[in-house]
Amino acid sequence: MFLGVFALAVTGAAETGYEAWLRYAPVDSLSERRYQALPSSAVALGDSLVVRTAQAELVRGVRGMLGRTLRAEGALPRESAIVLGTFAAVKAAAPALALPTNLKQDSFLLEAVVLDGFPCLLITAPNDRGVLYGVFALLSKIARHETVAGLNEVQQPYAPIRWVNQWDNLDGSIERGYAGRSIFFENGSVRADLARARDYARLLASIGINGCTINNVNANPRILEDSFLPQLARVAEAFRSWGVALSIAVDLSSPKVIGGLGTFDPLDAQVGAWWRVKADEIYQRIPDFGGFVIKADSEGRSGPSAYGRTHADAASVIARALKHHGGVVFYRAFVYNHHLDWRDPKNDRAKAAYDNFHPLDGEFEDNAIVQIKHGPIDFQVREPVSPLFGAFERTNQAIELQITQEYTGQQRHLCFLPPLWKEVLDFDLKAGGGRTPVKELVAGRSFHRPTGGFVGVANVGMDANWLGHPLAMANLYGFGRLAWDPNLSAGAIAEEWTRLTFGNDATVVRTITAMQLASWPIYESYTGPLGAGTLTNILGSHYGPGIESSERNGWGQWHRADHEGIGMDRTVATGTGFAAQYAAPLARLYESAKSTPDDLLLFFHHVPYTDVLHTGKTVIQHIYDSHYEGAERAEGLVRQWTSLKGRVDEERYAAVLAQLNYQAGHAIVWRDAICNWFFRTSGIADARGRVGHHPHRIEAENMQLDGYSPFEVSPWETASGGKGIECVGEKPSCQAMFRFNRPAGWYELDVQYFDQNNGESKYRLFVGMQQVDEWVADDHLPATRPGGDSSTRRRVTGLALRPGDEIRIQGSPDGAEHAPLDYIEIHRWPPE
Amino acid sequence: MFLGVFALAVTGAAETGYEAWLRYAPVDSLSERRYQALPSSAVALGDSLVVRTAQAELVRGVRGMLGRTLRAEGALPRESAIVLGTFAAVKAAAPALALPTNLKQDSFLLEAVVLDGFPCLLITAPNDRGVLYGVFALLSKIARHETVAGLNEVQQPYAPIRWVNQWDNLDGSIERGYAGRSIFFENGSVRADLARARDYARLLASIGINGCTINNVNANPRILEDSFLPQLARVAEAFRSWGVALSIAVDLSSPKVIGGLGTFDPLDAQVGAWWRVKADEIYQRIPDFGGFVIKADSEGRSGPSAYGRTHADAASVIARALKHHGGVVFYRAFVYNHHLDWRDPKNDRAKAAYDNFHPLDGEFEDNAIVQIKHGPIDFQVREPVSPLFGAFERTNQAIELQITQEYTGQQRHLCFLPPLWKEVLDFDLKAGGGRTPVKELVAGRSFHRPTGGFVGVANVGMDANWLGHPLAMANLYGFGRLAWDPNLSAGAIAEEWTRLTFGNDATVVRTITAMQLASWPIYESYTGPLGAGTLTNILGSHYGPGIESSERNGWGQWHRADHEGIGMDRTVATGTGFAAQYAAPLARLYESAKSTPDDLLLFFHHVPYTDVLHTGKTVIQHIYDSHYEGAERAEGLVRQWTSLKGRVDEERYAAVLAQLNYQAGHAIVWRDAICNWFFRTSGIADARGRVGHHPHRIEAENMQLDGYSPFEVSPWETASGGKGIECVGEKPSCQAMFRFNRPAGWYELDVQYFDQNNGESKYRLFVGMQQVDEWVADDHLPATRPGGDSSTRRRVTGLALRPGDEIRIQGSPDGAEHAPLDYIEIHRWPPE
Repeated sequence: MFLGVFALAVTGAAETGYEAWLRYAPVDSLSERRYQALPSSAVALGDSLVVRTAQAELVRGVRGMLGRTLRAEGALPRESAIVLGTFAAVKAAAPALALPTNLKQDSFLLEAVVLDGFPCLLITAPNDRGVLYGVFALLSKIARHETVAGLNEVQQPYAPIRWVNQWDNLDGSIERGYAGRSIFFENGSVRADLARARDYARLLASIGINGCTINNVNANPRILEDSFLPQLARVAEAFRSWGVALSIAVDLSSPKVIGGLGTFDPLDAQVGAWWRVKADEIYQRIPDFGGFVIKADSEGRSGPSAYGRTHADAASVIARALKHHGGVVFYRAFVYNHHLDWRDPKNDRAKAAYDNFHPLDGEFEDNAIVQIKHGPIDFQVREPVSPLFGAFERTNQAIELQITQEYTGQQRHLCFLPPLWKEVLDFDLKAGGGRTPVKELVAGRSFHRPTGGFVGVANVGMDANWLGHPLAMANLYGFGRLAWDPNLSAGAIAEEWTRLTFGNDATVVRTITAMQLASWPIYESYTGPLGAGTLTNILGSHYGPGIESSERNGWGQWHRADHEGIGMDRTVATGTGFAAQYAAPLARLYESAKSTPDDLLLFFHHVPYTDVLHTGKTVIQHIYDSHYEGAERAEGLVRQWTSLKGRVDEERYAAVLAQLNYQAGHAIVWRDAICNWFFRTSGIADARGRVGHHPHRIEAENMQLDGYSPFEVSPWETASGGKGIECVGEKPSCQAMFRFNRPAGWYELDVQYFDQNNGESKYRLFVGMQQVDEWVADDHLPATRPGGDSSTRRRVTGLALRPGDEIRIQGSPDGAEHAPLDYIEIHRWPPE
Repeated sequence: MFLGVFALAVTGAAETGYEAWLRYAPVDSLSERRYQALPSSAVALGDSLVVRTAQAELVRGVRGMLGRTLRAEGALPRESAIVLGTFAAVKAAAPALALPTNLKQDSFLLEAVVLDGFPCLLITAPNDRGVLYGVFALLSKIARHETVAGLNEVQQPYAPIRWVNQWDNLDGSIERGYAGRSIFFENGSVRADLARARDYARLLASIGINGCTINNVNANPRILEDSFLPQLARVAEAFRSWGVALSIAVDLSSPKVIGGLGTFDPLDAQVGAWWRVKADEIYQRIPDFGGFVIKADSEGRSGPSAYGRTHADAASVIARALKHHGGVVFYRAFVYNHHLDWRDPKNDRAKAAYDNFHPLDGEFEDNAIVQIKHGPIDFQVREPVSPLFGAFERTNQAIELQITQEYTGQQRHLCFLPPLWKEVLDFDLKAGGGRTPVKELVAGRSFHRPTGGFVGVANVGMDANWLGHPLAMANLYGFGRLAWDPNLSAGAIAEEWTRLTFGNDATVVRTITAMQLASWPIYESYTGPLGAGTLTNILGSHYGPGIESSERNGWGQWHRADHEGIGMDRTVATGTGFAAQYAAPLARLYESAKSTPDDLLLFFHHVPYTDVLHTGKTVIQHIYDSHYEGAERAEGLVRQWTSLKGRVDEERYAAVLAQLNYQAGHAIVWRDAICNWFFRTSGIADARGRVGHHPHRIEAENMQLDGYSPFEVSPWETASGGKGIECVGEKPSCQAMFRFNRPAGWYELDVQYFDQNNGESKYRLFVGMQQVDEWVADDHLPATRPGGDSSTRRRVTGLALRPGDEIRIQGSPDGAEHAPLDYIEIHRWPPE
């Protein structure tokens, strides 16, 4: 029997991002001196699998960072040691040692102690998972070059629920996943190779996450079939040594659809029995199973309304089946009518969760948790805090945050979300008359609930770096850290993550931290003004601009922009009355446009474009200014990143630069779509004369075309001038030409083209007879047509241009992608 | 028509070594300021393919390093420009410009001039190849962050012949190639994809190499078959734009073997006609064909001796066929009898080349070149300079240097060869009574020959980094630079190469340069004492130790070591008389042991082990001391390299570290084999008590074995104690154990095992119950048995060991490799 077989630190491997914040990169020799006194043994007391995992991780981490292999011992040696064990195991080995009482589950203690006369570093906890967390905390300190001498530190989790959800489908796709196929499923079954699942559980454990729901909330009933249970047990086994509980999303109609009953009425005794038997079967195979997640009566899912029952009825029948096993049920509050009549100005999707759930307070079992999205709509870049958090005094709740960037750039745009989450968590809903910040409500602290906490929708995939964008993993890290301690600042989290992921070079740490902290405001400023809600194409990808897609349909994501004004009137006086769902002081705040903060103005009020904001600007000028400023700041991210050239490994340097370059180009697409749309709709010109004027832009449709033909892009605002050109004739390639007519000098040239996912067109760029660039449009963007989702920028820097130069682009179509082009823009280089 | 389609600089790619010294890595922004005034146009005058290639390379290099795309122009613009063209083309465009006269072919001029009132940088040359070389020179300056302002520089090649030979076989293998399969051939034909050949020609051109012979000197006659010529033409095409002439090695019996004649007698008219027709055919397809290389009457090859003809007869018939096409023939002087009677003390292989060729001086055609290995034996780590160089006054000659490290560590050991080559090239043979350093003789300068120069046996292969060891490409670079200018110092070459390959960080440049310069003396000191000749297994791999393999056979690489003394007596007075092949002053020097330099003592003299050297040491003590010192210095290379951690990209850092670690282990194998053999043979103990005493070594055969059994290694000196252990029973794995009995502390543990190429055994190492390492013996060493060729070290650092620890190694055999082990050695860690 081995005490532990551990993976050796990989040296010299390319920086793919797979190791994320657990790289255990070698500590430089100067910093290494801080750890010379570290004991040479790692003692695991007791026989817990998780504690043995903790021991192996400690050996692995120290080996990677300090080049030493700690002795993995099973009992106290007569020398200095790092001692790991639960309180019980430590007590048994060292009865004289005083240990804290009243620590919560998953807490841990790091303490320099003397055992048998030898100085030791004790890592102990009420339960084995806490010991593992303590080891990760110690390794994080070393990775960040912090001292570990004389430690005396207790850390306790803020709430018991710290889970992630994955929206993976059994066929291997992931709903709202932007980083490849599922790490859990393929072709309707659990994957044969669960190495990624195991490594994911390790990442989760390292930031204190203790549960993971592996399938889509739009659940396939098959997940509960008898034949599927052994497969789930394999995933649970992969999670077990990392203390991560497996859970699954289930369909409420399962008793009927796969159980063969004639009903799934939650009050039917047969149905209750069916859930009990099913739960017993699961726990027989998976004793540490976490529980179920339910999405019901929402977006076409079955629900209790079929039998006139309440959500509490539905949650309870399942909660009771899980209760004696220690399992919990998460019941999602994301319930709304998606066939709302848009003509009725009183209708309001934002009201749905509160209206549906607040009457049920007190009717849920103690092991049921209502899972509430942070805002009343759906993970928008800006919405008010959901009033439902303040409506439960006798019901467990959890906040649902979205790590996967569905409405915030889909990991193609940098958008570090902890600052957004912090605003929500710190927001005081003044429930029950007292001070009740959301974090306290969801943690169950405000009203002394037995459980509650944090759920993050992660949707990592098979991409080597888990989330696609090399900087996006900061969101998963930040979610875990905030779930552990929501009082941490977003800046501290960004800095921690940067040190762990990119090392401790001061310039790198400062620059990346600043970029992360700026990124959400930047994204907001070029995509969504003043809390109007998203202006993306909400009927499709939820990605590029599509201003009118939210209007005139039943989905209720209306911004109500017309030729005179914009915004949803949600006041009590004249609007939908949503504001009244808040406690009185907040309701009053939002009821008046004057007191409503600018960044939520259009969420609560419909105002004329000429209304003046607290900033003194009109609404329309704010729309123009913020979008220009946002696009400029996105360009600034590129410049900040290039200042790190040579300080960051080449692989990740190039990968991030490519993403940021793309983002800066797409920010201009967003800017122009929104500014042009509002200009055409309002008829009010930009006071600074920018909108509609692009002196350095040459529209493709205005070039001299050979084979190319112009076409209309829909919606019109997603292409410059509403038009593009495409190569649809018989020829294998087409050309578009124009003459440069500015002074001789160095320039950079941005080609805006459309990169669909149904073809790989080739482009070549010429200055005169000289080819100066070529590329293939082989990106994977969510688009099969030219438009805001596919619009992409290719930048060529450092071109020496002369007046009269013929600039020519040659496009070779492929598949259904006709080498489409929008425009070329030319600027002085290098930028000022 | 495009002026040039160029590859874009690859960014973010892993550092595989493929780009070698042409990485064109971005220049940091501080150094970049030096190049702000660089013109923005690159003008190629005239319509030469090579000049257009030079223009495209200039655009590519500047784009990679400075991020600017120069305008590729075809005529002088009315502005500053970098102007490329031959003298003729420049004269045509700017008749007023004064250009130098009397520059040799391939020379170039870099000069800041004023053309039409605009400051320009002129890169011009007598021929187009010179222009290309000038561009590479300019790009090298930028890569090394040198100024390029106000240039006025002429560079001329030292000799017209600057060629490489590749010993590639048509089946795709490479004789004495250590970096994968052939880039030219596979399965009996030229490869379909010649991208590597093209990129190789670019590398060669960048260091001034103008010819490449692509097939083994042990030539397959098929290369001259009619069906093969179109394939050769494809290679010539791949070389052409880089100004590299294709040549091939041919078999002298071709007229008979593939030509269908009844003879290949060089004096037979039919034979002469056959060669003429064949040459005409070749030149029809390949107008710039370089010529032929011939190995005849050597190591079993056919030759003129079959018809009683001379080498001059053989060379001449072919030279005459090539002459009017401008081609040359290289006739190798590596001719000797490999069935020499070793019992006759007068026999001496070293005499063969001189004896065979010096009588023929003046009998070769003007386009024939005798190609002479640098020493009289065969690329040994130490031999005297071949006396044949001094024997030709009326014959063209070229020196053959070996870039592929056949006898110098086969690119598994670091051995930077320019210092060796410099010693040879600077050696004054005093031919004809004057001062005649070898470089002047081979360049044809001493006796005013029409041609001559330098041939390097390169043997690059399909390995991504061309030569296997990431630092070995310095030898190819160094060969090219010395062929261009043999007056360059080895240190300057090493520094240039390091800057181009690893960047300009001062510590990196200093450290790698020092390592390269030290590496040949280090390799010599642990493998070959006092010019005794190689002690490797000369009958097989030419790699690991095998002291007696050169004795008692006809190959003539005798060192004549017996129980009393060692060395070949090559004096006139009592020995083979080889010394008399040198001019009188040198012959006198070598005739006396007293005046012979220590490092050639055993080449010229047989001396007792107790003889005292100029250093004051006895021969035997020198053997012991130098081998211990060499092994220690090899270990020092590891430490020098680890000081660069974080300053060199991870990929190459790890790859070089692995090689150096292996080398340091193999240096100990060499040390112990030689020291033990001479100790046993001479019976004279090491005055410092080291030989035969290894206090920290535990022989595998002395461990407690479970499944393993001891076996005898042959020759005995290639394993510690002459024995190893192997796992040959029924069990899937075997174990060997011992108890650690030294004080508690940090240690490193070296496992010496045998890694054959006919199996991939697995090893696991345990301390007590804890696995601390595991690895697979999957290296590609030239060995199918345990011994000096396969002996390999695995090092585990940073182990905390305690007295009484059980250390256990588990080996799992695979194929014909029985998880063999030699010993374990344990040292304090970190090293002092």
